[in-house]
Amino acid sequence: MIKVVLIGAGNLAFHFFKKFNSSEKVILKQWYNRSLEKIHFAESVVAITNQLNRLKKADLYLICVSDDAIESISEKIQINGLVAHCAGAVPINRLSGKTRKAVFYPLQTFNREKDLSFDKLPFCIETTYPKDQTLLKDLAYCLGGVAYEFDSKKRGIIHMIAVFINNFSNHLLHLGSDLSSNYQIPFEIFQLLIIETYHKSMLIGPKNSQTGPAIRRDQKTIYNHLDLLIDDDLKKLYLILTNSIQKKHEPKKL
Amino acid sequence: MIKVVLIGAGNLAFHFFKKFNSSEKVILKQWYNRSLEKIHFAESVVAITNQLNRLKKADLYLICVSDDAIESISEKIQINGLVAHCAGAVPINRLSGKTRKAVFYPLQTFNREKDLSFDKLPFCIETTYPKDQTLLKDLAYCLGGVAYEFDSKKRGIIHMIAVFINNFSNHLLHLGSDLSSNYQIPFEIFQLLIIETYHKSMLIGPKNSQTGPAIRRDQKTIYNHLDLLIDDDLKKLYLILTNSIQKKHEPKKL
Repeated sequence: MIKVVLIGAGNLAFHFFKKFNSSEKVILKQWYNRSLEKIHFAESVVAITNQLNRLKKADLYLICVSDDAIESISEKIQINGLVAHCAGAVPINRLSGKTRKAVFYPLQTFNREKDLSFDKLPFCIETTYPKDQTLLKDLAYCLGGVAYEFDSKKRGIIHMIAVFINNFSNHLLHLGSDLSSNYQIPFEIFQLLIIETYHKSMLIGPKNSQTGPAIRRDQKTIYNHLDLLIDDDLKKLYLILTNSIQKKHEPKKL
Repeated sequence: MIKVVLIGAGNLAFHFFKKFNSSEKVILKQWYNRSLEKIHFAESVVAITNQLNRLKKADLYLICVSDDAIESISEKIQINGLVAHCAGAVPINRLSGKTRKAVFYPLQTFNREKDLSFDKLPFCIETTYPKDQTLLKDLAYCLGGVAYEFDSKKRGIIHMIAVFINNFSNHLLHLGSDLSSNYQIPFEIFQLLIIETYHKSMLIGPKNSQTGPAIRRDQKTIYNHLDLLIDDDLKKLYLILTNSIQKKHEPKKL
């Protein structure tokens, strides 16, 4: 059994709360948040507090706050235990205080509105003491996930790659969805294309999956598309992505 | 029963060939290609030809050639029948000759290396004569797909949106995959993130799905990522996508 104190009430904290609460191998000892209002709903199933100097004894203190708040929160945790933050972009040494330090970063995108499966979820872990790795690996395993050891530098790179893969790809879908509604085209007609995009990419690799006017050097279609895009920023984005595709691929026949 | 003559031997033609061949409601009467070599393998199941003046009688002549070749091929089809091309970006009037004209554009990305399901596949159809719509709708239905009527202008816009949704998104996965291998990070760890990206976007919409440093206005992380990107074109792409996200979203808390 792994005893955890959860610190913070952002998206990730809520997903951890639900998961810990339903896990038989994790005991959520306490939930801290600066404002009790946000976590009040959980009072019947877990001890809640807004006092960092009243944290209960636990195996792990899991800080799930915004990146900028990690340092100041960790400074105030005066406890003899293992303290981990969950941020991809924050180095382990940003944790201050005299506690044992760690990182437990789930490589995933979280929204409050959508349940998330922890099944096979990769957790990027890092610890200052090698012996603390076992606990984090166990925790990842108890949640159904998989642990990977990465130092802070590599985790920063992983986080940057995740921005391309998730944040930027999602934004392209957003642009597509807005263009559709501008032109009264039902966005649903793109659903199978969206599914096939990532299925194919995972099956035969994104390099082999590339199709379209950019890779075909189909200038006529590229110009037509640029004409259709009224917004100058979208034109610029279209061009830079088209050039980026052409830079990665030798000309290819349809 | 719908009798079809297939014209061309690109990716899409191969997928149609396989599908027509396994369909009980479509009879593939003949397969034309400029070079017989490419379609020789099919000789035992379908009549093949490299002579456009020897096309057999059929309900539909389906032109699956590169966009630039559609006009010149259609010019040479001297037959009394319905001739359709399958290109998103090509207007119906690019078909020449005196035949009845149509478009039968499957909204999907095709590679030879991967089988493709036609189940629920949207076909964007257009005809010069309203009475010809029935045949194309029937064909879409016989293949397991769904027909949508769009004129050439709207189909061009749909094709442009599909470039954002598929070509550009796939390219971001490609960039992520290349960055991973540059830094010896196993690309597999991003698999669940990729799946969740598209699932979440379809479930709660791409606007609500957006997360990450751009939408959070997390300048520190944005600068760190730009520092990590050595390639100037990637830096530029990162910045333009970050600005595009910020333009679409008011600042949002983590």
